[in-house]
Amino acid sequence: MTVPTLLVLDAEPLPRLGSLTGRARIEHADASTLAERLPGADVLLVWDFTSRAVRSAWPGEGPRPRWVHTASAGVDHLMCPELAASDTIVTNARGIFDQPIAEYVAALVLAMAKDLPTTWALQRERTWRHRESQRVAGTRAVVVGSGPIGRTIARTLKALDITTALVGRTPHTGIHGPDDLDRLIARADWVIAAAPLTEQTYGMFDARRFGVMQPSARFVNIGRGGLVVEDALAEALAKRWIAGAALDVFEHEPLTPESPLWQVPGLIVSPHMSGDTIGWRDELGKQFVELYERWAAGRPLVNVVDKKRGYVPGR
Amino acid sequence: MTVPTLLVLDAEPLPRLGSLTGRARIEHADASTLAERLPGADVLLVWDFTSRAVRSAWPGEGPRPRWVHTASAGVDHLMCPELAASDTIVTNARGIFDQPIAEYVAALVLAMAKDLPTTWALQRERTWRHRESQRVAGTRAVVVGSGPIGRTIARTLKALDITTALVGRTPHTGIHGPDDLDRLIARADWVIAAAPLTEQTYGMFDARRFGVMQPSARFVNIGRGGLVVEDALAEALAKRWIAGAALDVFEHEPLTPESPLWQVPGLIVSPHMSGDTIGWRDELGKQFVELYERWAAGRPLVNVVDKKRGYVPGR
Repeated sequence: MTVPTLLVLDAEPLPRLGSLTGRARIEHADASTLAERLPGADVLLVWDFTSRAVRSAWPGEGPRPRWVHTASAGVDHLMCPELAASDTIVTNARGIFDQPIAEYVAALVLAMAKDLPTTWALQRERTWRHRESQRVAGTRAVVVGSGPIGRTIARTLKALDITTALVGRTPHTGIHGPDDLDRLIARADWVIAAAPLTEQTYGMFDARRFGVMQPSARFVNIGRGGLVVEDALAEALAKRWIAGAALDVFEHEPLTPESPLWQVPGLIVSPHMSGDTIGWRDELGKQFVELYERWAAGRPLVNVVDKKRGYVPGR
Repeated sequence: MTVPTLLVLDAEPLPRLGSLTGRARIEHADASTLAERLPGADVLLVWDFTSRAVRSAWPGEGPRPRWVHTASAGVDHLMCPELAASDTIVTNARGIFDQPIAEYVAALVLAMAKDLPTTWALQRERTWRHRESQRVAGTRAVVVGSGPIGRTIARTLKALDITTALVGRTPHTGIHGPDDLDRLIARADWVIAAAPLTEQTYGMFDARRFGVMQPSARFVNIGRGGLVVEDALAEALAKRWIAGAALDVFEHEPLTPESPLWQVPGLIVSPHMSGDTIGWRDELGKQFVELYERWAAGRPLVNVVDKKRGYVPGR
C-alpha cells in the first residue's frame, strides 16, 4: 500500500505532524513552489491560511489533490472556480475559533460600553476624569453570520443579557434571513459581522447600511475584511452616523503604517487575532491529524465546505 | 402634622427630589455647614458620597437625624463610633450598582485576557503585531465580597464559563469563609476585590497575599481603595509576582497627577466609575424617594446597614 503524499503550504511555526510519521509522506511548498508540487500531492494542508497561493496555483496542469484542508474558518483565500468545480473535497477548521472569537467580541462590546479606550488615553495623561458608561444588559445586538462562530457569539452576548438576533443566508428557527437585516440593524446597539466572505457578502456593510444604523450603534467585524467597505465605515464614523467600531480584519492584511484606518476616530484596530488564543496552532494541527486519520481509514470527512457557497452548511 | 426636615449633603448635580414637595422640608448642607444643621434634621441624605463630612460632623452636640441614607454601596466614608452606637438607622444604595459593576469587571477581565491595552498602544504607533491571547472560559476566579455586588460579579463571570468562587465574612452555602481565601487565591487566574471596607478588610490585599497568587494571576479592585496596600501591589507587579491588575478605587481619590500608580507596568487605572452607568444618579434619587415614602408612612426601611459590620447583612 502506497503512503499518501501530504503537501503542506507552510507557515512558521510548522504544524506538528509527527504522529503521521509512516502514514503520510510529508512534503513542503511555499507560494513559489506550490504549482509544481500540486500534481504529486494526494492531500494539501493549507497551513499558511493568509496565503492566496492556492487560488493562483490550482488552475494549473496535471492531477490535483483529492482533499484540501485549510487551517482557518474562512475559505475565501483558496477558492477559485476550478477548485469549486472539481471533485476535490475542501475542509476547514470549523469549531476551533468559535469560543475565542465570541469572547473577543464580548471583550470589544464591553470595552466600548465601559469606555475603556478613553480610560487608557487618560491614564497615559495621568488625568482623573470620571465618566458615565453604558450598561450592556438590555441592549440589542445583531450577529450577521449564523455559522458556529456567529452562533457562539450570540450565545455569549445573550449570557451578558444582551438581546441578540442572528442573521443567516436562509431563515431558519431562531435565525433571520437577509430580508430582516436592515430592519434589525436599524434598532441595534451592536452590529457584529461574522459571516463568511462570499459573492453575496462582499461589501455588504456599505454606506447605505451604516446610514441605516442608529447614531448610538457600534459595529464590530471579526469575519473577513471584505465584508466591509472600509472607506464608508471611516466616513460613517467621521460623520457620527454611528458611535464606534472595531475591526479585527481588513481588506488588505497586514494593515500598512500608511493606512488611514489606524487613526479613524472611534475605531479600534486589532491585527486579525480574535480567534488566536494560546495553543491555537496546536489545536489546528490536532484537528488536521484527526481528519487525516478519518480520510486514511476511508471514513467520511467532517467540516466539509460547500464549495459553491463558500462555507460549511448546516448546524 | 409637621413636615420632616430632610437635610441633603450636596454634590452636583443635585438629586431630583421634586416628588417630595410638601412631604419634606428640604435643606442643604456642605462640609462646612453640616455640623450646625444636623440638629435640625430628621433625615440626612448623603448625596455627596465622596465626602467624609459626616464622620467629622456627627460626634457634635444636639439631636441627630433619625435616619441617614447614603447614595453609595459603601458606608465607610460616613461611619464613626458615635453613629454606630446611636439609634439612627443607616441605609445604603444596595442594588443600584450590582449589574453595572459586574459588567465592568467582566470588561476588565476580558480586556486583560485579550490584551486590549497592548492593542491600543500598538494602534497609536500604527503597528500591526499579531499576538496570542487567552481564553477566559475554563479559567478560575475568586470574588472577595459576598454581598449583592460580589454575587452579581460571580454570576456574570460564570456566564462567561469562568469557574468562580465567592468569599464572604462567614461561610454559607455557595460562599467560602475567610479561612479558604489563601487557598483559593493561590490557584486563581482572577482575584476580584468587591468587599466593603471594614476593620477586617482594611489592607487585606497586602504583599503576603500578592505573594500567594500565581505569576499568571490578575487582580481587580472595584470595592474600596483601602482594601489594597497600593505600594505592595505596585511592587508585586514590578517583580512579576502577578501578571496584571486593574484598580478603579484608591486609598486617596481622586488620584493626583503625581501618583506613581498611573505608570505602574501592567496596571489599569480608572477613575472610580465602575458602577456609574448613564442614568445612575436618577436611579439613586429614585431609590431614596422610595425609601423616604416608606419611612414617612411608618413602614420598615430596607437596605438597612448593620452599623457594627459596616454593610447590609443577609442575602
